[in-house]
Amino acid sequence: MKKTITLGHGSGGRLMHQLIEDLRLQLSNKILDELADAAEFKIGNRKLALSTDSYVVKPLFFPGGDIGKLAVCGTVNDLAMKGAKPIYLSLAFIIEDGFELAQFKKIVNSIKQAARQAQVLVVTGDIKVVEKGAADGIFINTAGIGVIDYPASLGVKAKLGDFIVINGGIAEHGMAILNARENLEFSSTGIKSDCRHLNFSVQRCLKASKKISMMRDLTRGGLATVLNEIAQGSNLGIEVDQQAIPIKKSVSKMCDVLGFDPLYVANEGKFICFVNQKDAPKVIKVLGKQARIVGRVTSSHKREVYLTTKIGAQRILPMLESDQLPRIC
Amino acid sequence: MKKTITLGHGSGGRLMHQLIEDLRLQLSNKILDELADAAEFKIGNRKLALSTDSYVVKPLFFPGGDIGKLAVCGTVNDLAMKGAKPIYLSLAFIIEDGFELAQFKKIVNSIKQAARQAQVLVVTGDIKVVEKGAADGIFINTAGIGVIDYPASLGVKAKLGDFIVINGGIAEHGMAILNARENLEFSSTGIKSDCRHLNFSVQRCLKASKKISMMRDLTRGGLATVLNEIAQGSNLGIEVDQQAIPIKKSVSKMCDVLGFDPLYVANEGKFICFVNQKDAPKVIKVLGKQARIVGRVTSSHKREVYLTTKIGAQRILPMLESDQLPRIC
Repeated sequence: MKKTITLGHGSGGRLMHQLIEDLRLQLSNKILDELADAAEFKIGNRKLALSTDSYVVKPLFFPGGDIGKLAVCGTVNDLAMKGAKPIYLSLAFIIEDGFELAQFKKIVNSIKQAARQAQVLVVTGDIKVVEKGAADGIFINTAGIGVIDYPASLGVKAKLGDFIVINGGIAEHGMAILNARENLEFSSTGIKSDCRHLNFSVQRCLKASKKISMMRDLTRGGLATVLNEIAQGSNLGIEVDQQAIPIKKSVSKMCDVLGFDPLYVANEGKFICFVNQKDAPKVIKVLGKQARIVGRVTSSHKREVYLTTKIGAQRILPMLESDQLPRIC
Repeated sequence: MKKTITLGHGSGGRLMHQLIEDLRLQLSNKILDELADAAEFKIGNRKLALSTDSYVVKPLFFPGGDIGKLAVCGTVNDLAMKGAKPIYLSLAFIIEDGFELAQFKKIVNSIKQAARQAQVLVVTGDIKVVEKGAADGIFINTAGIGVIDYPASLGVKAKLGDFIVINGGIAEHGMAILNARENLEFSSTGIKSDCRHLNFSVQRCLKASKKISMMRDLTRGGLATVLNEIAQGSNLGIEVDQQAIPIKKSVSKMCDVLGFDPLYVANEGKFICFVNQKDAPKVIKVLGKQARIVGRVTSSHKREVYLTTKIGAQRILPMLESDQLPRIC
């Protein structure tokens, strides 16, 4: 049988990491090899960041956002995670023949609002139309440029002893998408995507502490996947406390009923900040009352994430092979 | 009936221009409003360019190139047209579930080769996998950053009296794609896509003359569409001489047989340079023996393109409404 690329390769799990690693090896260079949310380099007298993402979410419109808002916030947030101030975006559409013009206009309007709120400008773009059946409605790609002013480089590695601060409750985006897509009966719970731009929150953190080693937004694969990536990339251990991880009751309940582990569910407005223990309260303070310290970086059990469960037991929190099912993306 | 976006909106013709104009009005800002192949702006002490394009070509592999080579060269060329030296690319894949891994690797290898030849680095990327039937095999988006060193800004407007220099024969990409896609019987003619990076050719032109007002690559919609855009954007007239426009015999013959006007057929390695009459020979010299002067910019018949046909008659060369059929993209 011929080897193929499958949905599992796009899920944020181990299969995807392998595919990305193959790609990196082929195209290897110093900047790409960092494999950060955004590439970092110097041009002239400024340090810049470049990031890109394609958006293929279904349904296109969901409580808390739509594909347009997502396309702006997602790339803005990837830049922000490198400590960059996002300034310019490119915007490329792939549209299926027969796509409703009114829907397109609604999406463009969301892009406009989201860009205004995040204070970025869309400066260039592209539109491709493909035959009926050759795409699923509409796909959007954005790439973004940001300027890095933070004196120390925000890397992709955590430091031993760092505290891990999260800016709010997890799993809201994934559950909102699932709810909207499958027409489930959780509508009364008011679960909304947390999709939002994080650049100003990040700037506040960077102002509050000069001892931040890294930040990451918790998109595909959720908190657990990102923590595993960081433990491996930093060659250190991570301990998290389940009790401390914020999650809305309605979200937690929906995960329970459907058998999802919220630790692996996607977010679009949540990030974690790795900061020196002493400065953690400063970061909490600027992130507001939803923020929590959820864990810390250790020298024991290197490259693994340990979870202290609600009943006080410790267990390994593994990286998933591919997805939880049904798929949310 | 609900208004929809159709294939015609993606063809480079009048429908597409209208859609892009609507989009520009919504997202309007000084940089976007230029509607150049690449956005131009200053960051720190450097002038930069940013451009993006999605690549949806069918078939994925064709004589003279493939979707990977196209994705590198296309964005490199858009940057080059603003006089920028392309340096960094982002690379985003949307892949259909079940896509063959071997084909993916072949495409990545082409990207690697093309990037090496154009001397650009892929520094960041993204992979999305969508369900079977939700995409047509694979789509690629690239965005690119370039540095602009040319002292005068290369604009989007031609100057009165400019000569128009083309770097070689037209319609090769479109005809090669059509030939490969429809399994036509023109295989013995050896028609190949002209897909190639133009950044070094452009740099040679900019070195040869300081009196270049603008450049444009002749992609979707071909030479005729681009000339119309420029005549309208510059509020000037353009005259072209059909006799002077280079085209390979095999390409011309295939166009004749199938009823295509090569002036509207896509290219992926051809561009036109608007240069002061006196400097035109210098540009021709650095572009090599395929280059020709094909026309000039006039004050008469503003916003229109006039073609002097092979028998010496003059006629308007209009902008198409949507496509020539069958569609080539």
